[in-house]
Amino acid sequence: TSSDVFLLQMGWGDLGAFGEPSKETPNLDQMAAEGMLFLDFYTANPLCSPSRAALLTGRLPVRNGFYTTNGHARNAYTPQDIVGGIPDSELLLPELLKKAGYVNKIIGKWHLGHRPQFHPLRHGFDEWFGSPNCHFGPYDNRERPNIPVYRDWEMIGRYYEDFKIDLKTGEANLTQLYLQEALDFISKQQASQQPFFLYWAIDATHAPVYASKQFLGTSQRGLYGDAVREIDDSIGKILNHLQQLGISENTFVFFTSDNGAALISAPKQGGSNGRFLCGKQTTFEGGMREPAIAWWPGHIPAGGVSHQLGNVMDLFSTSLSLAGLQPPGDRQIDGIDLLPVILQGKLIDRPIFYYRGNELMAVRAGLYKAHYWTWSNSWEEHGKGIDFCPGQSVSGVTTHTQEEHTHLPLLFHLGRDPGEKYPLSFASEEYQRAVERISGLVQQHKATLVPGQPQLNVCDQAVMNWSPPGCEKLGKCLKAPESDPKKCSWPH
Amino acid sequence: TSSDVFLLQMGWGDLGAFGEPSKETPNLDQMAAEGMLFLDFYTANPLCSPSRAALLTGRLPVRNGFYTTNGHARNAYTPQDIVGGIPDSELLLPELLKKAGYVNKIIGKWHLGHRPQFHPLRHGFDEWFGSPNCHFGPYDNRERPNIPVYRDWEMIGRYYEDFKIDLKTGEANLTQLYLQEALDFISKQQASQQPFFLYWAIDATHAPVYASKQFLGTSQRGLYGDAVREIDDSIGKILNHLQQLGISENTFVFFTSDNGAALISAPKQGGSNGRFLCGKQTTFEGGMREPAIAWWPGHIPAGGVSHQLGNVMDLFSTSLSLAGLQPPGDRQIDGIDLLPVILQGKLIDRPIFYYRGNELMAVRAGLYKAHYWTWSNSWEEHGKGIDFCPGQSVSGVTTHTQEEHTHLPLLFHLGRDPGEKYPLSFASEEYQRAVERISGLVQQHKATLVPGQPQLNVCDQAVMNWSPPGCEKLGKCLKAPESDPKKCSWPH
Repeated sequence: TSSDVFLLQMGWGDLGAFGEPSKETPNLDQMAAEGMLFLDFYTANPLCSPSRAALLTGRLPVRNGFYTTNGHARNAYTPQDIVGGIPDSELLLPELLKKAGYVNKIIGKWHLGHRPQFHPLRHGFDEWFGSPNCHFGPYDNRERPNIPVYRDWEMIGRYYEDFKIDLKTGEANLTQLYLQEALDFISKQQASQQPFFLYWAIDATHAPVYASKQFLGTSQRGLYGDAVREIDDSIGKILNHLQQLGISENTFVFFTSDNGAALISAPKQGGSNGRFLCGKQTTFEGGMREPAIAWWPGHIPAGGVSHQLGNVMDLFSTSLSLAGLQPPGDRQIDGIDLLPVILQGKLIDRPIFYYRGNELMAVRAGLYKAHYWTWSNSWEEHGKGIDFCPGQSVSGVTTHTQEEHTHLPLLFHLGRDPGEKYPLSFASEEYQRAVERISGLVQQHKATLVPGQPQLNVCDQAVMNWSPPGCEKLGKCLKAPESDPKKCSWPH
Repeated sequence: TSSDVFLLQMGWGDLGAFGEPSKETPNLDQMAAEGMLFLDFYTANPLCSPSRAALLTGRLPVRNGFYTTNGHARNAYTPQDIVGGIPDSELLLPELLKKAGYVNKIIGKWHLGHRPQFHPLRHGFDEWFGSPNCHFGPYDNRERPNIPVYRDWEMIGRYYEDFKIDLKTGEANLTQLYLQEALDFISKQQASQQPFFLYWAIDATHAPVYASKQFLGTSQRGLYGDAVREIDDSIGKILNHLQQLGISENTFVFFTSDNGAALISAPKQGGSNGRFLCGKQTTFEGGMREPAIAWWPGHIPAGGVSHQLGNVMDLFSTSLSLAGLQPPGDRQIDGIDLLPVILQGKLIDRPIFYYRGNELMAVRAGLYKAHYWTWSNSWEEHGKGIDFCPGQSVSGVTTHTQEEHTHLPLLFHLGRDPGEKYPLSFASEEYQRAVERISGLVQQHKATLVPGQPQLNVCDQAVMNWSPPGCEKLGKCLKAPESDPKKCSWPH
């Protein structure tokens, strides 16, 4: 059975099936109607790089090294000047799938490090079309290079220079290019009868948001909505392609997101987390609960709905299971195999851990969520207009100082109060019972936790994408400045 | 064609089909899948009595008298001591439907006045099982009587005394009684081949929330969710009954709500308005945008979605149209006939007016909404812990003083910003264009507006339900105190 994973930057509330008022995602809604909707599915981190590293390793970022210790409980990712990346010691999903004869392709944003040793083709992927970092820019050639776009081992151009994104109109045809890549790859694999793993990690909904001309202005929601519509349309085309080729019953497809909607970019460039609190960068539900749909015609009963607590790391274990492989036995794996959930409707009791950096901020077990630390962002950042929770303010919860609650965690019941607005009374029996249970889980978790070497501590302008492999053929090599490694600055 | 209208106190976000994370409304979700979902449907007022008066008269509360002038822009309803009610001069939907041979029944809460002249059977209904007011209580017999439950002309008992609601456990079998009444009425009408209008206005989701024993504890959402599940189950049974009797293709069914979820009662007794701002009592989207589903198998294409700006007053005009009747020509009717929308997918350009009392607070045209006044509630009430916007705070928008913006309205684009968090810049061209258009609509509206005699100004303890008709047979007549009419106090 082949696997497709669609990974996007979208919020829980961005899909019609999840209540977006414009209801402009007919293809994703149909995917849900034909498959299984996960309502309690999480990412591993409220930021992109650590989540992606977790998905591909099946391990929490604190284990695989995708965190920083520069600041207490801080967010970090892989900007252009990051020195670190995915360690060789980590075993990635495509590396393992190879053993079962899979051909693996990543289309879109990698984000697990851009230096040569971190190249996706060194970590199990056979093909790559996309970029190592987000499509930020355009930058001045002398100050910072534009992000390269790779085909396999070599760059074939740069964003803004060769792959246009019009920042004024938001026009870019990149999603169409990524769609065509996916369709071609699937056709090729079907023709060669080889199982495949396609990781479709496009990024049109990440600011600066873009869409193709035919989608511009078509959404009630503005440019962000145009991008969502184009992605929705593309996913419809990919699913349709699988069906037309007659391989849909042999292909497991999963759609989800790497972090909650970036409310700092809203409303023009950011999506919706529905009624959940705050967004990307936070460990409130808005930052980490994700839309999620499993699709596998003939296997998953249509119209299913699951309340299984799921996590992007489960896609690691589930994909291995589909390939008939075991997860590696020499390390802690945080993902679980979701097939019993998907195929037999089982519910597996497991907690969700919410981390910022190396700090365990919160834990969910059942319908209870305990916050051990609360923080949105600093007063200083907030004063500059950077707001992770625009229009929302819950006293003592969306705090602008890092508040410790480890001795008396704030407890929420996410069934009655999905918006995390009404902490339970410390004196209640319900509080005592739930916190006792969660504290046990935390003790157990911490007792066995071996943090990986932190990868996101050091930045250096010299390591930026000045001269990626292949630049010489294009005449696009830039001269790097002298090396000057520094602690990366993570203000939030 | 018969008409069923289901009217409840539920928020936009309470249904699975509208993104409630527990997704516990399979019957309503199926009703939507088989019918048409209205995503931009409104009530006529953020409070129950005025909305219900508007639904049944097809006219804004400011026209039919369901407002107060005691305070500026204040909310008002029909408590037990209200002197006013629906004026004889108003023509109600059932009065008109009678002319086409309809038999009309109301099950549940009337709320258009409880004194003899306001009795629903004097205003076109043929049958009644339910109460004139909300099921508040229990009260002390000497201070205030419990609310009576009527069968047709006479009371047959009182809430808490004869119709139990256990305030500790939330147990009450009332929804089952109301369900049975509906099933029996439909059977009887089918047998006698007479068209009917059933107004099923139950109130289990109004605080104090209740559910039958079999539903208690079944929801992730607590007692409120138990009540929602029971209602969802009941609606499934009613639709199923219509199908079993073979009359579903001759029966138009509409589901909606009379106001947004009461967030003052959340999380235990109040629902969800999804990502919309604030709730009941306010003219933000959370107070007035409602879940809405039209169902009419064989006529409405399954799975339809409409962005028509709709209003509960449209059910007046639409039901008349279904009966082959014209709306009265001697008065202003605010409702429109939705059949072209429902049957032919048309979109009718029309504004939505958001009133509090006799004050026009806001107007929506297309995707733009202009606020002429903003107010949540007073600082004084807020200081007592009464919060219409818990966890939400939008500077200059969710104000605690009544802020006038009539010269420079606050403008929101509800497509990009359904949560009303980001007012458009006054200087933008987009602002100028939209406000110019909306101002024209406001001028036109105000020029022809003749306010009705206000019905909700005067309260008197003597008019309470001391001795409703039939009380003598039950030995349940109570002695009224002396008449002492006063201005009603509406603190919010």
